[in-house]
Amino acid sequence: MTEFRSVAAATGEPFGEPFQVDGPAEVAAACAAAEAAFDVYRATSREDRAVFLERIAAEILALGDSLVEAAMAESGLPRARLEGERGRTVGQLQLFAQVLRSGQWQQLRIDPALPDRQPPRPDLRLRMIPLGPVAVFGASNFPLAFSTAGGDTASALAAGCPVVVKGHPAHPQTGALVAGAIARAVEASGLPAGVFGHVAGPSNELGAALVQDPRITAVGFTGSRGGGLALVKLAQARDVPIPVYAEMSSINPVLLLPEALKARGEALGTAFVGSLTMGAGQFCTNPGLVFAIEGEGLDAFVSAASGAVADAKPQTMLTTGIRAAFGSGTDALAGHAAVKTLAQGDTGNTTCGGAVLFQTTATEFLADKALQHEVFGASSIIVRCADEVELAAVVAGLEGQLTATLHMDAADEPLAGRLLPLLERKAGRVLANGWPTGVDVCHAMVHGGPFPATSDARTTSVGSLAIDRFLRPVSYQNLAQSILPPELRDDARNDGAPRLIDGTLTLG
Amino acid sequence: MTEFRSVAAATGEPFGEPFQVDGPAEVAAACAAAEAAFDVYRATSREDRAVFLERIAAEILALGDSLVEAAMAESGLPRARLEGERGRTVGQLQLFAQVLRSGQWQQLRIDPALPDRQPPRPDLRLRMIPLGPVAVFGASNFPLAFSTAGGDTASALAAGCPVVVKGHPAHPQTGALVAGAIARAVEASGLPAGVFGHVAGPSNELGAALVQDPRITAVGFTGSRGGGLALVKLAQARDVPIPVYAEMSSINPVLLLPEALKARGEALGTAFVGSLTMGAGQFCTNPGLVFAIEGEGLDAFVSAASGAVADAKPQTMLTTGIRAAFGSGTDALAGHAAVKTLAQGDTGNTTCGGAVLFQTTATEFLADKALQHEVFGASSIIVRCADEVELAAVVAGLEGQLTATLHMDAADEPLAGRLLPLLERKAGRVLANGWPTGVDVCHAMVHGGPFPATSDARTTSVGSLAIDRFLRPVSYQNLAQSILPPELRDDARNDGAPRLIDGTLTLG
Repeated sequence: MTEFRSVAAATGEPFGEPFQVDGPAEVAAACAAAEAAFDVYRATSREDRAVFLERIAAEILALGDSLVEAAMAESGLPRARLEGERGRTVGQLQLFAQVLRSGQWQQLRIDPALPDRQPPRPDLRLRMIPLGPVAVFGASNFPLAFSTAGGDTASALAAGCPVVVKGHPAHPQTGALVAGAIARAVEASGLPAGVFGHVAGPSNELGAALVQDPRITAVGFTGSRGGGLALVKLAQARDVPIPVYAEMSSINPVLLLPEALKARGEALGTAFVGSLTMGAGQFCTNPGLVFAIEGEGLDAFVSAASGAVADAKPQTMLTTGIRAAFGSGTDALAGHAAVKTLAQGDTGNTTCGGAVLFQTTATEFLADKALQHEVFGASSIIVRCADEVELAAVVAGLEGQLTATLHMDAADEPLAGRLLPLLERKAGRVLANGWPTGVDVCHAMVHGGPFPATSDARTTSVGSLAIDRFLRPVSYQNLAQSILPPELRDDARNDGAPRLIDGTLTLG
Repeated sequence: MTEFRSVAAATGEPFGEPFQVDGPAEVAAACAAAEAAFDVYRATSREDRAVFLERIAAEILALGDSLVEAAMAESGLPRARLEGERGRTVGQLQLFAQVLRSGQWQQLRIDPALPDRQPPRPDLRLRMIPLGPVAVFGASNFPLAFSTAGGDTASALAAGCPVVVKGHPAHPQTGALVAGAIARAVEASGLPAGVFGHVAGPSNELGAALVQDPRITAVGFTGSRGGGLALVKLAQARDVPIPVYAEMSSINPVLLLPEALKARGEALGTAFVGSLTMGAGQFCTNPGLVFAIEGEGLDAFVSAASGAVADAKPQTMLTTGIRAAFGSGTDALAGHAAVKTLAQGDTGNTTCGGAVLFQTTATEFLADKALQHEVFGASSIIVRCADEVELAAVVAGLEGQLTATLHMDAADEPLAGRLLPLLERKAGRVLANGWPTGVDVCHAMVHGGPFPATSDARTTSVGSLAIDRFLRPVSYQNLAQSILPPELRDDARNDGAPRLIDGTLTLG
């Protein structure tokens, strides 16, 4: 195969102009260009790099409606959602421009020489430097915000790393449009073309070649557990292993605490299904699991949620493959001896998926890890617990998660306080009285969490902290001022970046 | 085998009382205790944890001369060195107490709610939390500073992680004394005993069981490349993979730039051998490689260094195994067709090792990766380069290193400036006009570097930044003040820790 085409999510039929299927030669060329561009790119000033990111944002906006229409056709997602996602994508780039200007990410540290100490201390200065060229694998479910110019690309470029994107085959037109926008920003900024590379094609071999290229120094990925683990394995088997930041699998438990459930079980049930079915349930943070203690409040919740699921309309899913996997996943749960199907709406067809709600008990949930497998789409399991002990036990039995949600009233606070240490160990984000499907792009966001939510719990893939993934510390000892990196020189005091001087933090 | 004994480094003979050989049961008990202690320990205040670290330091000093004498007998290292190392160990614990009090490591971030923004932003707050119980493998070459209460233990305890140490079999008495000191500090601080565990024994299986225990969440290791990679493999094969911070293998290139070499080739040669033979060359940062451009300066350097090596006295090595490996490593180099033996001092015996100096050309060095294998001990290779192009080529051909050293005069600065971007990518620390064997414990130190110097270039195992290895971010969304972690509450403004509020860094 030398060419491939877009597939319309709504029909499963190919459309539009064909795209070249890239192979090992294109991967090698993109990686060579990225490596050649690295030293030039990382030597740019914080301000120049910030302006570059802002140019990418402007070029994406300049694509106008053609971008939204391509994404709508390829992903099946509605206009309002994709316009919002475009805003988020542009906002992410602008956030990283702001992060660059702040300079905090450089972690500048200076320990002045102490010649009279025994033993004498030399002059030591530290900064973070970028790792090198980064491979980014876009996600199918956010064709803009987690794809070609998404959070991984924005944070890696901010760190000073050239990026080679492996375009997602579910949205090649969208990806090509955005790649063109980035390339125009690279050129307008006078940067080497290798700062951004883009390869596309439907095969897994293409991605494997990219991860195995010796010039690639880190990988960002959002997608399935199987896909993420395959990349981790390839990265670890290299002569020089590299870090893989794979955001993979999460079922995002929602805990309905007794007082909240008693006060508003029915309203919670309706709101829960709103979150469950948003975007056909195709969110990494979709609430796939509900934990609650038996009682009238839970009955009211189940009744309202079941009704809302039964009424839910099928929605176009991202690809026919995702639709088929949703079908197999929900079929497996429906056929599970310990699982009861509470409600199922219109099941749709080969491109549209409906919503399904299941129920089991704490004992059954703890007995079978298969009940924790992510079913990507609008599917959720309510786990009925006898008491607080069972509630804590099902939380303790969870795999790692992106999020954990508490619905609680003031009278639930003592219980929530007891659960919090457990929830922190299981999830990257703990939220109260909301739904996990909104992920704000800001400084205090963690979109990450213990395995298998991600392959590296020490980071986040959303928010400004994501830049740290692509940096490593270097220490400079007794270097002459003239060859020290500019930001570490004695005369660099007023560049705005905070510095830790002999252990004391000073604002720039 | 149920018991094992210390072996005197100077004689290779067992001495002293026998120690129990721990096995899977002791590993499981230590890990269970660590897990049980985790929530209590991580809930301690920064101040309480700082005082605990200071108590450990005091308890180590209270061991008095018995500790130094045990370490001398077991390691063969001289008294002055071990007294200095004890000071360094105590200083590390005190540094982390200071780090704890500063609060910067918590990375507190608050993004206040923006209810009127579209979409509205919830209240988001972030802090770093400890990973969980950490396994620490001590190094043979620093029986105090990189062992039982060494940098890995100090930084993990500072982060809030219980620690289980696998004592190094080369110094069981030293290890047991220090473990006892830590246990007394745990008790005096009113902490659960599981905050610190200690298992000992001569087998690799013991360490494997520790890394495979599901309650262990991260591993710190200093030792050989083979040992480090074995632990990495075990950690990656777990149901839940965990990070391994292995500091493994480095030959620490020293670049003699032309003007410095011209001005003081002879003096550099003598000083170089001083660094090479310090502690029988048994340093991770031992200068095992010298790069220089042909000329009279290099001839003078070679002549002086050869003379000093020929005169070098053999020194007791840490173990007979290390002595034997040093012999095989130097024999392999001596027998290499492309390597010339420049000088060899008295070769010692089965416990003492001498010094050896080799020479090769840039072309030969680039042709055989085997010339980059670390030979632990006082062995170094001088690589003669024809010109700057060859010098840059050998640097580019290097594996990852802990350090890279420049000897340079003012007139060498342009060349040093051209080499610096290359050196930064190869090493965690770049130093000028000194020797790499001194590693200061401070804020701006990086004792780390690209693979195979370490298994994770994004960190350091020495200095205050080492605490970051054992932390992960958690985000709290719309949590009531009463259940928020105390340091993230609205009324926590004056606890001294810096906070990033809506993107602006504010000092506490």
